[in-house]
Amino acid sequence: MEPYNGDWMRKYRGHCKLVVKPGSTEEVSKILKYCNDNMLAVVPQGGNTGLVGGSVPVFDEIVISTARMNQIRSFDEMSGVLVADAGVVLEVADQFLAEKGYLFPLDLGAKGSCHIGGNVSTNAGGLRLLRYGSLHGSVLGIEAVLPDGTIVEDLCTLRKNNTGYDLKQLFIGGEGTIGMITAISIQCPQRGKAVNVAFLGADSYEKLQLAFREAKSQLSEILSAFELMDSYSQDMVHRVRQNKRPLDGEYPFYCLIETTGSNTEHDADKLEKFLEDVMSKEIIADGVLAQDETQIKSLWSQREGITECIGHFGGTYKYDVSIPLKDLYRLVDETRERIEAAGLKGDSDEFPVVEVVGYGHMGDCNLHLNVAVRRYDKRVEEVLEPFVYEWIGKINGSISAEHGIGIAKKKYLGYSRNDAMINQMKQIKKLYDPNGIMNPYKYI
Amino acid sequence: MEPYNGDWMRKYRGHCKLVVKPGSTEEVSKILKYCNDNMLAVVPQGGNTGLVGGSVPVFDEIVISTARMNQIRSFDEMSGVLVADAGVVLEVADQFLAEKGYLFPLDLGAKGSCHIGGNVSTNAGGLRLLRYGSLHGSVLGIEAVLPDGTIVEDLCTLRKNNTGYDLKQLFIGGEGTIGMITAISIQCPQRGKAVNVAFLGADSYEKLQLAFREAKSQLSEILSAFELMDSYSQDMVHRVRQNKRPLDGEYPFYCLIETTGSNTEHDADKLEKFLEDVMSKEIIADGVLAQDETQIKSLWSQREGITECIGHFGGTYKYDVSIPLKDLYRLVDETRERIEAAGLKGDSDEFPVVEVVGYGHMGDCNLHLNVAVRRYDKRVEEVLEPFVYEWIGKINGSISAEHGIGIAKKKYLGYSRNDAMINQMKQIKKLYDPNGIMNPYKYI
Repeated sequence: MEPYNGDWMRKYRGHCKLVVKPGSTEEVSKILKYCNDNMLAVVPQGGNTGLVGGSVPVFDEIVISTARMNQIRSFDEMSGVLVADAGVVLEVADQFLAEKGYLFPLDLGAKGSCHIGGNVSTNAGGLRLLRYGSLHGSVLGIEAVLPDGTIVEDLCTLRKNNTGYDLKQLFIGGEGTIGMITAISIQCPQRGKAVNVAFLGADSYEKLQLAFREAKSQLSEILSAFELMDSYSQDMVHRVRQNKRPLDGEYPFYCLIETTGSNTEHDADKLEKFLEDVMSKEIIADGVLAQDETQIKSLWSQREGITECIGHFGGTYKYDVSIPLKDLYRLVDETRERIEAAGLKGDSDEFPVVEVVGYGHMGDCNLHLNVAVRRYDKRVEEVLEPFVYEWIGKINGSISAEHGIGIAKKKYLGYSRNDAMINQMKQIKKLYDPNGIMNPYKYI
Repeated sequence: MEPYNGDWMRKYRGHCKLVVKPGSTEEVSKILKYCNDNMLAVVPQGGNTGLVGGSVPVFDEIVISTARMNQIRSFDEMSGVLVADAGVVLEVADQFLAEKGYLFPLDLGAKGSCHIGGNVSTNAGGLRLLRYGSLHGSVLGIEAVLPDGTIVEDLCTLRKNNTGYDLKQLFIGGEGTIGMITAISIQCPQRGKAVNVAFLGADSYEKLQLAFREAKSQLSEILSAFELMDSYSQDMVHRVRQNKRPLDGEYPFYCLIETTGSNTEHDADKLEKFLEDVMSKEIIADGVLAQDETQIKSLWSQREGITECIGHFGGTYKYDVSIPLKDLYRLVDETRERIEAAGLKGDSDEFPVVEVVGYGHMGDCNLHLNVAVRRYDKRVEEVLEPFVYEWIGKINGSISAEHGIGIAKKKYLGYSRNDAMINQMKQIKKLYDPNGIMNPYKYI
């Protein structure tokens, strides 16, 4: 039972005594109907890679796992529409599509274990939303089971379908609170033949914003990622891995730019011209262009390795938030100041906090504010919360960019949604799940 | 009152005696609260360019016009997010954005008069959905007023916001049946500096599908439109306009391919190579590439002029449907056969039907099946309906790709949605509009 009762961050623990692994939508329907009739609480669980406790049975809920529902149902090579079970692992789906010249329009760190049903249920965003958009746009249909066992058959494979309220949207990001997604249909883009990556250093956050603007303008349709990393995050990677840094000098800010397109020559030409331009204008202090696949992976690992490296010291307080671009990094500085002022950060073991770092999907205004700690400590939490949420509430940011609400953020929802909105959400929850058996006491 | 009581197709007529033109969201709130308290039915109306009677007061509803709510509220040049009143005309919004180097991610024939609030309410699709995706993905937030006067403030300007059910999605395509949209925030893409257009002729629908597949693969990230036109539609344009045809020969099928990108040279290179390739492989019989802005307009008018030219003879029965690509054109052939078999089509005035034509957004599997008539005739209707809807229902198509349900398709909803889905929709309607004052007897 162990892996089903906890999360990989070891923040949440449950007391679930029963995991069911249905092999079909009909079985999910029977299970839910039984649970609903007998007032038994359930938690749908995919790869259980979430960060907000949404898929963890924090009480004694029954876990309904999608692990056995892992078949690709169909793929249309003309339209690029994939229909697949909820329990297909994201990376498996993407590899299947790669062979056909397509890609799954979502990519994230946990791709090797997360399930696509969980991705849709949590409205996962990830690395390339900038290019391929939100799941609200790319998911064409879902099959889901309501708490009373009703099977919602809405596996549309057409991009345009204006026939009534688009109810599937409530399940996208609904975190299994109104029903359980058992399959999805999704529009997949062509896989770009040419991928290029550049790694740049900038002297200030202001200059990095200028670089982003130029990238949008000059790289436009081929820009597939614009990732921010501060010096603190890169120092941590260097400290843990002892590797050679991509650039000779050190800078307060770095970014990773990826382009994806259909013509290697054209794309390299655009990226080189862009680099020359931003360096000659002194927007960027230094930069390097990956010369081959190995270098591409190596540059990406400077960004993707952050999570692992900052977790190395014991634990991490993670905030995944959206903030208008101009104010985005200010939250990291102000949080660091507060932690330092409270005397909680230092080099020796007596201080709980190792470092406060900022990185994330700058192209989507999505900041990962991470506080690396030697141990979880109530004093650190008190400095961080509700400060971080209040700060975000004041500038109309989002307290959850992509990880969702789960149990972690339920009490902070009011910083991003007003009473009228929360009231409407509660009515939706009541309409779909009148007995409150789906993921109870979470979300809303 | 005249323009508010009818639609531009002259298919629907109402008996509305009162049009209100609120100047602010607060005024909309007061109006709706008053109407709700006094059980007065209302119809929100934007540019009134719809095709399904959704914005027409088919009884004696009060029209609430968005005409005076026409201000652009803000635009962020860094993120590309536009916030604007519901009553801003689509073309006005796009021209505003053009000056900033951005574009509105929606384009359609009625752009000169339709309102963006109406576009979102009807989930308009248009010409470039293929490239810029659905409004479900690009609309970031809405402000709306519920029937009881509650103002829903959800004008998020962030791309990633996972804080509870995405309720705004119910209003996108909700056709003003659960509330009235008063403003939207929308993610706008960079405006491509380079636009190229090609016009191709093909010997069969099968070959046109091959051309589409090659276009997706070779033009990939720069492909911004792939439009289908059959010979019947082009004959009609030629018959009405007496203009020179773009190609020397005549072919059963034509397509218009548009590319949009950031580099003219690269894009022209890709498009030329594509043309050479599909012609050398005999996928395409003949093709022409626009050499300047005038030729681009001229080629587009072969596609965009179809609606006007086929309306020239009296009237048009219009079906806007989604069909899996391989079966898409078959509906046009089979409909023509039925009309001919019923003896309803001919060259002289005694026959009601002039021609049955097919065209549309092939890149989105979106067919416009149009029946050009000299006069509306019950016998033609009986041959067309429910035949067309049954045909689409059988192959899991959508009876409404982009025009919506309104009053025209309410009774046919069952061909695209099963009972469980329709039942859920009814519950949503009841939840939001318990008195049933919003656009009554339409939609659901």
